[in-house]
Amino acid sequence: MAYEDALTLKERGTAAVQDATRHAGKTHKDIVRHILDHVKAEGRNALTAPEGKLICDVYGIAVPKEGVAATAADAAQLASEIGFPVVLKIVSPDILHKTEAGGVLVGLANADQVTQGFATIMENAKRYNASANLVGVQVQQMVGGGQEVIVGAVTDPSFGKLVAFGLGGVLVEVLKDITFRLAPTTRDDARSMLDGIAAAEMLKGVRGGEPVNREALATLIENVSRLVTDFPEIAEMDLNPVFASKTGAIAADVRIVLDFSPPVERYRPSQEAIVRQMNRIMRPDRVAVIGASSEDGKIGNSVMKNLINGGYQGEIYPIHPKADEIMGRKAYRSVLDVPGNIDVAVFAIPAKFVAAALKEVGQKGIPGAVLIPSGFAETGNVEGQQEIVAIAREYGIRLMGPNIYGFYYTPKNLCATFCTPYDVKGKAALSSQSGGIGMAIIGFSRAAKMGVSAIVGLGNKSDIDEDDLLTFFEQDDNTEIIAQHCEDLKDGRAFAEAARRVSKKKPVVVLKAGRTSLGARAASSHTGALAGNDRIYEDVFRQCGVIRARSLRDLLEFARGIPKLPTPKGENVVIITGAGGSGVLLSDACVDNSLSLMTMPPDLDAAFRKFIPPFGAAGNPVDITGGEPPTTYQNTIRLGLEDPRIHAIILGYWHTIITPPMVFAKLVVEVKEEMKAKGIEKPIVASLAGDVEVEEAAAYLYEHGVPAYAYSTEIPVAVLGAKYRWARAAGLI
Amino acid sequence: MAYEDALTLKERGTAAVQDATRHAGKTHKDIVRHILDHVKAEGRNALTAPEGKLICDVYGIAVPKEGVAATAADAAQLASEIGFPVVLKIVSPDILHKTEAGGVLVGLANADQVTQGFATIMENAKRYNASANLVGVQVQQMVGGGQEVIVGAVTDPSFGKLVAFGLGGVLVEVLKDITFRLAPTTRDDARSMLDGIAAAEMLKGVRGGEPVNREALATLIENVSRLVTDFPEIAEMDLNPVFASKTGAIAADVRIVLDFSPPVERYRPSQEAIVRQMNRIMRPDRVAVIGASSEDGKIGNSVMKNLINGGYQGEIYPIHPKADEIMGRKAYRSVLDVPGNIDVAVFAIPAKFVAAALKEVGQKGIPGAVLIPSGFAETGNVEGQQEIVAIAREYGIRLMGPNIYGFYYTPKNLCATFCTPYDVKGKAALSSQSGGIGMAIIGFSRAAKMGVSAIVGLGNKSDIDEDDLLTFFEQDDNTEIIAQHCEDLKDGRAFAEAARRVSKKKPVVVLKAGRTSLGARAASSHTGALAGNDRIYEDVFRQCGVIRARSLRDLLEFARGIPKLPTPKGENVVIITGAGGSGVLLSDACVDNSLSLMTMPPDLDAAFRKFIPPFGAAGNPVDITGGEPPTTYQNTIRLGLEDPRIHAIILGYWHTIITPPMVFAKLVVEVKEEMKAKGIEKPIVASLAGDVEVEEAAAYLYEHGVPAYAYSTEIPVAVLGAKYRWARAAGLI
Repeated sequence: MAYEDALTLKERGTAAVQDATRHAGKTHKDIVRHILDHVKAEGRNALTAPEGKLICDVYGIAVPKEGVAATAADAAQLASEIGFPVVLKIVSPDILHKTEAGGVLVGLANADQVTQGFATIMENAKRYNASANLVGVQVQQMVGGGQEVIVGAVTDPSFGKLVAFGLGGVLVEVLKDITFRLAPTTRDDARSMLDGIAAAEMLKGVRGGEPVNREALATLIENVSRLVTDFPEIAEMDLNPVFASKTGAIAADVRIVLDFSPPVERYRPSQEAIVRQMNRIMRPDRVAVIGASSEDGKIGNSVMKNLINGGYQGEIYPIHPKADEIMGRKAYRSVLDVPGNIDVAVFAIPAKFVAAALKEVGQKGIPGAVLIPSGFAETGNVEGQQEIVAIAREYGIRLMGPNIYGFYYTPKNLCATFCTPYDVKGKAALSSQSGGIGMAIIGFSRAAKMGVSAIVGLGNKSDIDEDDLLTFFEQDDNTEIIAQHCEDLKDGRAFAEAARRVSKKKPVVVLKAGRTSLGARAASSHTGALAGNDRIYEDVFRQCGVIRARSLRDLLEFARGIPKLPTPKGENVVIITGAGGSGVLLSDACVDNSLSLMTMPPDLDAAFRKFIPPFGAAGNPVDITGGEPPTTYQNTIRLGLEDPRIHAIILGYWHTIITPPMVFAKLVVEVKEEMKAKGIEKPIVASLAGDVEVEEAAAYLYEHGVPAYAYSTEIPVAVLGAKYRWARAAGLI
Repeated sequence: MAYEDALTLKERGTAAVQDATRHAGKTHKDIVRHILDHVKAEGRNALTAPEGKLICDVYGIAVPKEGVAATAADAAQLASEIGFPVVLKIVSPDILHKTEAGGVLVGLANADQVTQGFATIMENAKRYNASANLVGVQVQQMVGGGQEVIVGAVTDPSFGKLVAFGLGGVLVEVLKDITFRLAPTTRDDARSMLDGIAAAEMLKGVRGGEPVNREALATLIENVSRLVTDFPEIAEMDLNPVFASKTGAIAADVRIVLDFSPPVERYRPSQEAIVRQMNRIMRPDRVAVIGASSEDGKIGNSVMKNLINGGYQGEIYPIHPKADEIMGRKAYRSVLDVPGNIDVAVFAIPAKFVAAALKEVGQKGIPGAVLIPSGFAETGNVEGQQEIVAIAREYGIRLMGPNIYGFYYTPKNLCATFCTPYDVKGKAALSSQSGGIGMAIIGFSRAAKMGVSAIVGLGNKSDIDEDDLLTFFEQDDNTEIIAQHCEDLKDGRAFAEAARRVSKKKPVVVLKAGRTSLGARAASSHTGALAGNDRIYEDVFRQCGVIRARSLRDLLEFARGIPKLPTPKGENVVIITGAGGSGVLLSDACVDNSLSLMTMPPDLDAAFRKFIPPFGAAGNPVDITGGEPPTTYQNTIRLGLEDPRIHAIILGYWHTIITPPMVFAKLVVEVKEEMKAKGIEKPIVASLAGDVEVEEAAAYLYEHGVPAYAYSTEIPVAVLGAKYRWARAAGLI
């Protein structure tokens, strides 16, 4: 600990510091705890500079040598011990903005200047705030040079503690070039922050400037992360500026704001409990429909029809206050009357009846309730929602919704929803916070024949939310990719933890709506939830390996395309195209999606050239030219798949009479299958330019594992790019 | 002219400056011309600092007071006249990078320091380059403070003279935050540059800094623009830094690089000549097909079939060396044998026969040749292409291609191409540089039933290019929007001039491929053309009112959607949505597309509230909630159209049983028609969330003038955004 060192200087700070210095020998946590307790006892919520620096010092965050002087003579003496030049700063718990108060002087070069400076600062401070308690003047080693950066920490209502990093200076503020990571950060997280700003090159030394010591800076970030994690009451922390140079990183100024109010506790079952209950809810053998109805047009009727017509093979128990039979099934007055266990209860009754029925669900020991009814928080009925949540907690019921369309789980042919049955089984699990977006998911999925394992409506998210779904789908063998639409994350921290774990196994794609400030405003009026700062979402998603979708179509196309593609084994992408013009646009799209167009080795270049006309362009894109027969496509694609240096292939097809669309589509699938038989599998995507027949060819290719798009060069490359983003984040390449 | 002022200082510069100063009384152009002539005579291609400053001075570009001293004593004397502090800089035609040479000293505060500084600089310069001609040392008023900015000019091979503006400093360099405009710039162009950088806020004064004098800065940019326009031999110019403050803008350092080689002349007919010839080519009454064939599979056969089956009503003359009749039409040996005039000749013969046939086309006085054949510059046969261009110039023939699919002009039922006939007439004219992209345009247009007036292949662009097409479509009453795909602009200046003029009347959308550096590399290998710097394209397009498409789909969707929409009369956009979740995503898209969500006035808010459930959200988006009947959509849409404060409407539809998709689509069209009858027309776009039936509803809406998309919130808003971008640039709102 650097704490002992700190004591070698005359420490003449506030009571808290004086007190803390008597505790030499204690652990660094003890010292910080002692200071914070003292500050709390004094009713303050900000640390003085000496308090802040001492805390930094014991946490290994380098700060300038310094001390606090109560008199001008003391200041001069202290400055001589530290060494000139020095900086003088007012120390007062009542003055946070020191510069504004005229409380800062820099570059004092000798004892006389310090003596005079002391007087000036004290006078300025009195003029600024006559009633301020002026503790004295801080005398500080003057640091500078290198690159000014900012390191800080904030407390986000959803994500909790985050560390922040950016360059210093006004320009950076204007450009909002700052990056965040969840605390605690790993060393890799901290390092990634240095590359996570637009101006990252500045740290590497430009125009003859020296590069900063990256490890020192990463250590500093890690230590800040450790500090705010150890002491949750540190709400905000600013090290600004930090002077980062070749030799190290020194925090020249420290600002720490505290919040002693206890954090809001959020209900969070164990991972094991989530899995146990979610498995019964999502894959039930026995389903009760509360509010089942024989009457056409009623939601309870639609739910019954969908369960039955969807082909669900488990037991269905209609619950109705009067009916004896509904749609050929025996009806019960209450779930309590049903013999044996029930796995999930689907609610299709008005909001005002939900609480009473939910109590019976609890008494029956049913682990989950799917609450289709609206009329809760989204209409202002916050109490009604709190009431049902309280009942759920009492009985250990997990709630899906309220205000949802229900959910689909296709491996069980389960359509627990009032929408249409879903008909294309597959491996993509989708969810939406909004019902409208849910309907778009259903429509697109059916139209595009996207294979789906589940579609889930989360609505008001009174209980079950995105991380519960992640935890369920993580262990669901019928799911290979998870795609979620959300407007807020009620517990961003829990989501991040689940996503970080799950994304190592299965791609997680998220469309975060309300991403722009106008969008965020609409989100608040819609759900009453505070939308988070978008940059924080951006950075946390990346930190957790989440693939962010920028649009609804991206969400849908990624969900559809990613599971079709094998995981690439490396970064070398090759474009093979019949249309030079497509090659150019596909190259543009590669750059937009951070894909690496392989630099073609001479032998491979020569090998490609053997198959293409002399005026075709080898290199990358491989331009086979427009008038070529099927064999040219075949030969070049086969070569692309066979050569182990190539890891992924983008195809640009040009509709000609010589190689018509379906001929192209079939030959691609043939070559792909031929290679698969030899154990070679690489991601292939295709862009098809041509007359309307290319649509059929694109559908055929997609069906056979090649995400293919007519009239678009950008979408196939975006899908491949999303696969790559996931594979990189999961550490697979 | 500030020129006389400049003479009040002792001018002791290079011969050129000394010479120029004897010409007091001449115009500012004379003085600059004199200096440049002198520099040329000396065989130099860079100006000395005094030369540069004098040129600035006479063009009204403020520079620090200064003079050149040949001895230390002179320097001290000069400094005393200018006033301390001063800057000293080496003056030598052989030393361009003064700082690197140790040739710069700043902040010299008195005569002694200047004397000593003079000696230091001369020694450093000798050490740096022993053979350098050291003219002396420049003594300069030391300026500083305010905001450092850079103003410059470059010469782009395609666009010619461009002025550039950015902030000073390394960080800005790293972030590449710089903006360009074609010179000469208008005052508005110059002003727009100040807002055209990401860091624009810095100029407005942040953190208590004072705002710069915007008019002074705009004047400085205008003067630079005037200078480089007057003197094309000024290839590059850098004013770096310029100190911009509240009071003015002073260029502290000037660097001017000259290029005396004469610019490459480009063939450019007059606008009137372009129109005359293009009208005959694009709307011909008599077409010759050179290489017409009866043989299936031949291109000359496909062209004949498409002309005949496409329904072309003009005369078709097959040209064939042997045949007497082809597809029921009399065939001729040569165009020379055809009686009467011919408007255009379509070539469907191998490259090697083109030149001879083209001569006959010239002799026949045919104004245009459509060169389908490949085998010219794109395969390395540059000479072959030069040969046909020479023939074309000799006879005044305009060439389309070579290496193209031909073109369509639907008002004449003309399919002069080997592709399929095009069947949906309309108002969008599209073109592509690449054949593959042309096929994608044809396929998409047919699939989406986009109404098209023309589709044109430009291929190698040996002659006819994008600006010829702009000039033709400008006066073509059958065309309302022009959408172009290009990889390079062979004459960016001509394109920009045409686009600036045409975009005031009709929207011009451009997809510039090769926009990223990787893409640009592919473009060079494809067309042999140097791709321009993308930022220049970006800025010039904006300056000329061109709507830039970011992807092929954007190009196609904009071409399809923009002509459907009436021009908005103002910026107030309102979202009316049945799905709150769509509202959030539509709001996100509004921000992404620079659309202004109207702040709802209280009376209008109240008016909307009357139609929607109490738990619906008014404000903007107007969230009518999901379970509403058709009347709620009707009432709110009608209100949105009727209220004159609202200028455009975005609809978010949510598929329900109560308001099924086609019911929604029909009611929207009904209300729209009802309002149209009252003279109210506003742009409406729609996003449809629901099951597959929404696709039919979207098609119906589109057909009736409402660009509508299933499963997408972003595309309809992007189309509306494109319409707005055009309307703003054309000065219509």
